[in-house]
Amino acid sequence: MTPTITAFEDPPDEGSGQARDMRVRWAFEEVGQPYEVRLVSMTAMKEPAHRALQPFGQIPTYEEDGLALFESGAIVLHVAERHRGLLPSDPDGRARAIAWMFAALTTVEPPIVELEVASFEAGDAACRDWRRRLIEGRVRDRLRDLAARLGDAEWLDGAFSAGDLLMVHALQRQGGTGLLEEHPALAAYVARAEARPAYRRAFAAQRAVFTDRQRGG
Amino acid sequence: MTPTITAFEDPPDEGSGQARDMRVRWAFEEVGQPYEVRLVSMTAMKEPAHRALQPFGQIPTYEEDGLALFESGAIVLHVAERHRGLLPSDPDGRARAIAWMFAALTTVEPPIVELEVASFEAGDAACRDWRRRLIEGRVRDRLRDLAARLGDAEWLDGAFSAGDLLMVHALQRQGGTGLLEEHPALAAYVARAEARPAYRRAFAAQRAVFTDRQRGG
Repeated sequence: MTPTITAFEDPPDEGSGQARDMRVRWAFEEVGQPYEVRLVSMTAMKEPAHRALQPFGQIPTYEEDGLALFESGAIVLHVAERHRGLLPSDPDGRARAIAWMFAALTTVEPPIVELEVASFEAGDAACRDWRRRLIEGRVRDRLRDLAARLGDAEWLDGAFSAGDLLMVHALQRQGGTGLLEEHPALAAYVARAEARPAYRRAFAAQRAVFTDRQRGG
Repeated sequence: MTPTITAFEDPPDEGSGQARDMRVRWAFEEVGQPYEVRLVSMTAMKEPAHRALQPFGQIPTYEEDGLALFESGAIVLHVAERHRGLLPSDPDGRARAIAWMFAALTTVEPPIVELEVASFEAGDAACRDWRRRLIEGRVRDRLRDLAARLGDAEWLDGAFSAGDLLMVHALQRQGGTGLLEEHPALAAYVARAEARPAYRRAFAAQRAVFTDRQRGG
């Protein structure tokens, strides 16, 4: 059966590829697995039917036969385990690629998301500025360490893997802050990933949800 | 070969079990795998030799034969995949347990860590208070959703799994905030986990690092 994922009916990122369904779409495209998408409204996302699939009322979810999963990292890993293309076949290389998946989601992404969230929060201007500078410092530390490890390599550990996929998607969320551009090698790493045909197909598919919506589709 | 992990030589949590080596020790104890610990100073942690193992200069790391891993989530998953006791044997149950591992580390833990970090940061008192209240709201949202899903079940999805292990460790970091206690079922869930013999052995082992240090050992 073709797996079905969920995505925002009215994407708050305006189809810029920052919503977390993008990761799962990209993983499907990398391994050549067709998938279906069910769009969910912001209201429906918080209702019991969706929460039965996703306890925290978020997207994406994954359904195939009797299995229902949530958490984009878990879904990407599930796809990567069932198809060739996103994890090395040797056990040690596979374990290291999975370590990079966790590093992307738990070490690199949190301060980047925090910085984005901070840009939306209401509050005193001086407090907001203080907070932004604190978080920027934490993002800079992570990017410096990541750039040092990547060096002039093409990908984080050998061939492109699910670790690169999640790392690139985490790094992309800094759009407009200029922090990524402080490390040309990291910016080039993200650009290399964005040039992959699988990335382009996934990006176009999520973008179409927004443009269809704009046209009243 | 017995795997070796790294831990703080001088634990900043004073042996209260909040450092991330605790998760890995607990996983080893649950599956009955002996392990060795190499203690690393705060200075050594930021030097090239350690960064070769852990690009972000953190603990824990994992070494066994030719394999070196970092990220506590990845190490717990690696241990859980190689031994019985932390992941269901049926493929769907296994995938769901892994989804809970990611939920613990990427959905529940980040605001909890943010709240802890906020309590240490220097800044204007009014700004710090504003920030604390914002983050408390996010922690409350996560705990409410988690409590709703757990209901009166013993563990998150059937038998105790690596998902419960990481979730409990994330929840424990709220010590002193009183937020966990707003959900008696979640507090009882954490207490059930803390009563497990494997948890107690792991806790005692990490605590001994601190008490030995206090005695000048």
